Amino acid sequence: MKCRKCSRPAVFNMRQHKLALCEVHYPEWFIAQTQRAVKKYRMFGPDDRVLVAVSGGKDSLSLWDVLLRLGYQADGLYIDLGIDDSVGYSAASREKVEQFAAQRPDARLTVVDLKAEYGETLPEVARRVQRGRGKPCSVCGLIKRHVMNRVTRDGGYDVLATGHNLDDEVAVLFGNVLHWQTGYIARQAPVLPARHDGLVRKVKPFCRFYERETAAYALLTGIDYIYDECPHVVGATSLRYKGILNQMEEESPGTKLQFYLGFLRARKEGFFREQAEEVELHPCTNCGQLTSVPGLCAFCRLWI
Amino acid sequence: MKCRKCSRPAVFNMRQHKLALCEVHYPEWFIAQTQRAVKKYRMFGPDDRVLVAVSGGKDSLSLWDVLLRLGYQADGLYIDLGIDDSVGYSAASREKVEQFAAQRPDARLTVVDLKAEYGETLPEVARRVQRGRGKPCSVCGLIKRHVMNRVTRDGGYDVLATGHNLDDEVAVLFGNVLHWQTGYIARQAPVLPARHDGLVRKVKPFCRFYERETAAYALLTGIDYIYDECPHVVGATSLRYKGILNQMEEESPGTKLQFYLGFLRARKEGFFREQAEEVELHPCTNCGQLTSVPGLCAFCRLWI
Repeated sequence: MKCRKCSRPAVFNMRQHKLALCEVHYPEWFIAQTQRAVKKYRMFGPDDRVLVAVSGGKDSLSLWDVLLRLGYQADGLYIDLGIDDSVGYSAASREKVEQFAAQRPDARLTVVDLKAEYGETLPEVARRVQRGRGKPCSVCGLIKRHVMNRVTRDGGYDVLATGHNLDDEVAVLFGNVLHWQTGYIARQAPVLPARHDGLVRKVKPFCRFYERETAAYALLTGIDYIYDECPHVVGATSLRYKGILNQMEEESPGTKLQFYLGFLRARKEGFFREQAEEVELHPCTNCGQLTSVPGLCAFCRLWI
Repeated sequence: MKCRKCSRPAVFNMRQHKLALCEVHYPEWFIAQTQRAVKKYRMFGPDDRVLVAVSGGKDSLSLWDVLLRLGYQADGLYIDLGIDDSVGYSAASREKVEQFAAQRPDARLTVVDLKAEYGETLPEVARRVQRGRGKPCSVCGLIKRHVMNRVTRDGGYDVLATGHNLDDEVAVLFGNVLHWQTGYIARQAPVLPARHDGLVRKVKPFCRFYERETAAYALLTGIDYIYDECPHVVGATSLRYKGILNQMEEESPGTKLQFYLGFLRARKEGFFREQAEEVELHPCTNCGQLTSVPGLCAFCRLWI
């Protein structure tokens, strides 16, 4: 198969776009598509300071790379959760992130080390507060949201960017639709606006890329990333949904993209009625982030 | 495993309800559940005349049987489409329906024979109007809707009941959600009200029963039905969706029921905004049923 744009052999074929490209034109296309998404969904402009949440994986490092190449003011945030399994997940992913930043003179990296700043690693705090039952994923989500929010706000950033890809977004949407979680369905979007309750603006510039597309970008541009998934994610429901969705995609290429874009269209046309939630908010007595219950916020309650 | 209601051995286990029942209590439960659905969704009352669309399959014959046992004024409508494949699908299913009616003195059956009334069987008309491309399913849907509507109205019935089960409803919903067919999503319901465009009121009393539940009812009460599916349905997208949904149900019993009930709840709470369609309607110059384009309706255009 030949590249659509030149006569070189294609290295990557996107069935859902009927588009095959070579090793030069694929990264060019990928960068241009990111720029289009940033503009189409009005995520941020050249004057905005963007904080990219990086995990050391292909999606977030590719996102940081592309935003830097496009000339945006993009800094990185890495949260070291201290996950110390057989592959030393946190140490290994932190190394990838620091390597990435060291190779790019424009890239500024903030590292938040959970153990150093709060006294416990994620597995430690999860064991303590959950008393051993279940996975630490919900505590992890709470911690990451809090820290990302804090660093975005304290660092004076305009927006937080995450590397969520189409497969991630579609798996979440699929799960929310199967259970008709109407509040979550109505809110899911490429841009989550800043909220009066102190949540910062969040954007997902890669939301229209399949996972294999971000992986191909990382491989072709030589981004060195951690292949291992977080060890806690094994067996997660989202992986089951991804399996189902991959099967449908296999039978009918483009299924996932159409499901997601059709959803965004329905949302834009006002198909979903969002229930107005009027929650009174109070600043956390420890950290100051707004919370629905007077006193400490859920994050601070983990530690105090 | 023992019956939940008595000490006899259970013959049927419903994992999603955590309910196992014997050969006496299962049919009792099934009949009571049908009555509950009829009342819950306000489908019809004892004074209403109900026309049941019967195909000869387990769902529609079971529905007719249950409504008769519950004392409703339920008559049957069978449409003989003249599908003459290797198993003689139409002839075989018609025989099942006529046998069923013959065994029940209260049961009145109307048979509409397409060839006799309109001069062509379904395969014949589909071949002529579609010129050989594709399947006759869309023409079949059009014909059945028209005939069911006509017989309901002309026979002075208050409501048309169909045997759609949970698996049918969920497969339709799943397909419509995957493609975000917002108009169809907003309208899908156990009761479709009569519309000003002449469509009669339609109800689906079995919409909360799994397919295996209606099959178990038919088997345990000795209803003789046609096992074969319509030969044209093979390879239909709805069967692919049913396969996917069965897989999810297998992994997590109750998935389909929760998906459907969650949808009905969201719908009832007004989560979906239905676009008002203001279409001007005209009576068909041949049959008088209302249609959006002046002149002949789509059904009459098949023949004239």
